[in-house]
Amino acid sequence: MRSKTALVTGANGFLGRHVSRNLSESGWHVLGLGHGAWTPKEANRWGVAEWFSNDVTLDALQDMHARPQVIVHCAGSGSVSYSLTRPLHDFSRTALTLAAVLEYARTHVPEAVVVYPSSAAVYGNAVSLPIEERAPLLPESPYGVHKVVAEQLCLSYASNFNIATVVIRFFSIYGEGLRKQLIWDACKKIYSGDFNFFGTGEETRDWLHVEDAANLIRTAIVHATPECPIVNGASGRATSVSEILKELFLNIAPHHVPSFSRREKPGDPKHFQGDVSAALKWGWSPSIGINEGLHQYVKWFKGEVV
Amino acid sequence: MRSKTALVTGANGFLGRHVSRNLSESGWHVLGLGHGAWTPKEANRWGVAEWFSNDVTLDALQDMHARPQVIVHCAGSGSVSYSLTRPLHDFSRTALTLAAVLEYARTHVPEAVVVYPSSAAVYGNAVSLPIEERAPLLPESPYGVHKVVAEQLCLSYASNFNIATVVIRFFSIYGEGLRKQLIWDACKKIYSGDFNFFGTGEETRDWLHVEDAANLIRTAIVHATPECPIVNGASGRATSVSEILKELFLNIAPHHVPSFSRREKPGDPKHFQGDVSAALKWGWSPSIGINEGLHQYVKWFKGEVV
Repeated sequence: MRSKTALVTGANGFLGRHVSRNLSESGWHVLGLGHGAWTPKEANRWGVAEWFSNDVTLDALQDMHARPQVIVHCAGSGSVSYSLTRPLHDFSRTALTLAAVLEYARTHVPEAVVVYPSSAAVYGNAVSLPIEERAPLLPESPYGVHKVVAEQLCLSYASNFNIATVVIRFFSIYGEGLRKQLIWDACKKIYSGDFNFFGTGEETRDWLHVEDAANLIRTAIVHATPECPIVNGASGRATSVSEILKELFLNIAPHHVPSFSRREKPGDPKHFQGDVSAALKWGWSPSIGINEGLHQYVKWFKGEVV
Repeated sequence: MRSKTALVTGANGFLGRHVSRNLSESGWHVLGLGHGAWTPKEANRWGVAEWFSNDVTLDALQDMHARPQVIVHCAGSGSVSYSLTRPLHDFSRTALTLAAVLEYARTHVPEAVVVYPSSAAVYGNAVSLPIEERAPLLPESPYGVHKVVAEQLCLSYASNFNIATVVIRFFSIYGEGLRKQLIWDACKKIYSGDFNFFGTGEETRDWLHVEDAANLIRTAIVHATPECPIVNGASGRATSVSEILKELFLNIAPHHVPSFSRREKPGDPKHFQGDVSAALKWGWSPSIGINEGLHQYVKWFKGEVV
């Protein structure tokens, strides 16, 4: 019997790879569409049975001649700083690719479920923590604005065209394969013998391991409806930069300690923490604690980079 | 001395034509960009000194080799029903053309002012009337959602890239040249001897004559800032369908009266009225009353159609 088919856009990206493998291991036949030259063998290694290297456009989606029951739209921009230097490209990557996916669902597979990984960047500088889903949306960057736009497209296609949709606002996702942001930068620094860090060390973020993120996406599938529920994807815990670095130093350079510039980035929220009650109600919960996750990450980092 | 230069996108459309002529008569050198085969003479008749027939893209904007001080983005979708049958096209027409205009401003003419005519469709079914600008945005149609998206792009470029921007949420604009919606349909019906109308006649809308809309756009120019003020563009009065028809019958078929189906369109707001305090504070006020405006419209209709 043919297993169910899922289409993962951006399957060659950080989140897309983990989502593809996760779905594949749960018995889904995974099709991937997006940028990147992947050999069939490499794609298979990440659970992608068939890889279509192309822009995510309506034409490209049609040309796949597929009939997915689930579409997870992992393609799109993933960088605040890119959105500040190339805002139009960022808008196109995030909003226009999603618009194509939703239009494809409406015109070709109206019974399919669309899962959209959004971002906590939609909240901007949150007024109170932990942030609930009903908090006001006050994005600070073009990236955050474009994610708001994307969510509105989901809500619009859900309510106007009856597409079963679900949105997950992910906080800081990390894990093997992520080659940017604090944890990656810190590993590189510590290995190079540079122990100086920006900020005070007291800044917090809510870190979620990418495997837990992939589990949440798989869990979300059955909750997609034309009401388009929106849930936070986070650990529910605020972890300070100091705690992250302490663990990384322990794993990499146990006889050293970080020092901090004590300057703060203007505009950056000092603390971030998600309320995950809604996702917990689905029966999902994060399974990889931050120390275990960092330990795995350093192991991967050593194998890849050092 | 060279007069100041304004770029009007969609200058060949209903609002664009009136805006172009209005600006031209106020001493602006008006460049037009958008769809439509216009001879230079026809364009000039509407105040457009140079007409560029092209899609509104970043490339097309660059290729004009212009340096406008003001950009009025009249291009974009103008139909709720189109957005329901072609939502992706509607999104592209509204959001993507505006994104191109804002990116053009950021990269080529950062000192330019961007004026964006939005729509009261962003409010959806309003909870209380008259609608103030701070009312919640609960758009009912893809058209309304895409207008919300457009406003967010304006706010994003204004705050992130310091572009002086202003948004006007227009209610029902009518006037010479409009070949759709209630007034146009009613004129055609009455002339054809069909006096039957949908609804109860008690439904209200807030009608603003296109000349008053163009005046408001011109007034808005000096109020554009990186805070991106948003004002309603309306008459501030709710006029019922019965009142509109009474005036049209008086002008066209004075010995007849309309009859109504008394059925209501589900989903359509029954009443609509804008609070125009904010625009009045700018010193603008509507100058053409509904009866005078309808009289002019019928005169134009007779010359064009009958």
